[in-house]
Amino acid sequence: MKGTAMKIHDYKGFPNPARVRIALAEKGLADRVAFVKVDVPAGEHKRPAFLAKNPSGVVPVLELEDGTALSESSAIIEYLDHLEGEPVLTGRTAKERGVIAMIQRKVETGFLDAVAAYFHHSTPDLGPHIETYQNRDWGEKNRERALSTLRWMERLLGGQDFLVGERLTSADITAFAGFLLADSVKIPLPDDCPGVRAYRERLARHPSVAAALA
Amino acid sequence: MKGTAMKIHDYKGFPNPARVRIALAEKGLADRVAFVKVDVPAGEHKRPAFLAKNPSGVVPVLELEDGTALSESSAIIEYLDHLEGEPVLTGRTAKERGVIAMIQRKVETGFLDAVAAYFHHSTPDLGPHIETYQNRDWGEKNRERALSTLRWMERLLGGQDFLVGERLTSADITAFAGFLLADSVKIPLPDDCPGVRAYRERLARHPSVAAALA
Repeated sequence: MKGTAMKIHDYKGFPNPARVRIALAEKGLADRVAFVKVDVPAGEHKRPAFLAKNPSGVVPVLELEDGTALSESSAIIEYLDHLEGEPVLTGRTAKERGVIAMIQRKVETGFLDAVAAYFHHSTPDLGPHIETYQNRDWGEKNRERALSTLRWMERLLGGQDFLVGERLTSADITAFAGFLLADSVKIPLPDDCPGVRAYRERLARHPSVAAALA
Repeated sequence: MKGTAMKIHDYKGFPNPARVRIALAEKGLADRVAFVKVDVPAGEHKRPAFLAKNPSGVVPVLELEDGTALSESSAIIEYLDHLEGEPVLTGRTAKERGVIAMIQRKVETGFLDAVAAYFHHSTPDLGPHIETYQNRDWGEKNRERALSTLRWMERLLGGQDFLVGERLTSADITAFAGFLLADSVKIPLPDDCPGVRAYRERLARHPSVAAALA
């Protein structure tokens, strides 16, 4: 396989692209992909050439050597995790895989997607490239949901280093993307979540996370 | 392993419980689980005993022999698919797994979850056990999203039998749960989706689907 036969179509700094970049760094696969910038601020992700790769019109997309276009960050990470490279991010045994998939989905729907909904519905004048339909009440409801999920994460973490035990998994990567987006839309971590605050700092220092964001 | 060492806490006839029941039937694992009824209409899923198993307060939950409680239907199916039994529902190779995970998530967020959001936000007087916050405009937006996803499914199906090629996968199971819920909330299949209509009938005749719903 050629060194850079796969392409990642994304926009650096955005939360879902960060998920895939962290997974690539964590698995030591970053030099196997070429990054192609999608000019999201100019609306390139809503034009036919990109929609042919991902009809959902969002980044990132992983384009395989045979032209297959994989979208949905959790699916891209699923692919990368089964390609090769250590450590495994989605679990090895049936039970590990089930638990990680469960926590990943709870963090994705309850935190990352909730913060994204708050962003889309509560940010004035996002414009036609980002969002035209806005429902402020739904945005506020999602801000509350994100905070509620952070409090669940506080209980889940207890004394452990990561959301599922003592190793970084896809669930932590999703959480970190949520932290990045929460920063940019100014949803601060609640004062009653000191464990989440320490966890977030731990993730930010984690080598693959630091490398992917550099 | 004992014959019925695992427990499924669910409520028969609801869409997410149907996903897990179809997966169990398709993999020939139905006699490995005991079903425990959660009285959802009476609000049992919002009481402490159930919330200890799933803080999200929704069915189904798979309780393993060691007491581990797995929630989120996609995670339960992930677990069951790695346990044993044929056929494989989530793919074997990295590419199969990535594509199936991608399509499953697009169907889940764009169709099943969208129809569920329409149900929760647009059905009058659901009451405190089901939904207290309602946002009619958001409900209507989700009805539109579900229809848009059905039109994407129409294009995706083309001449193939299932959403990912010629075999049933977890993506089809999610789609079928969406069809069940769409029926109950009266979102008919659009006239311009004859391929989806034929696909839905094909799924309904599929042995594991028919067995799980019997």
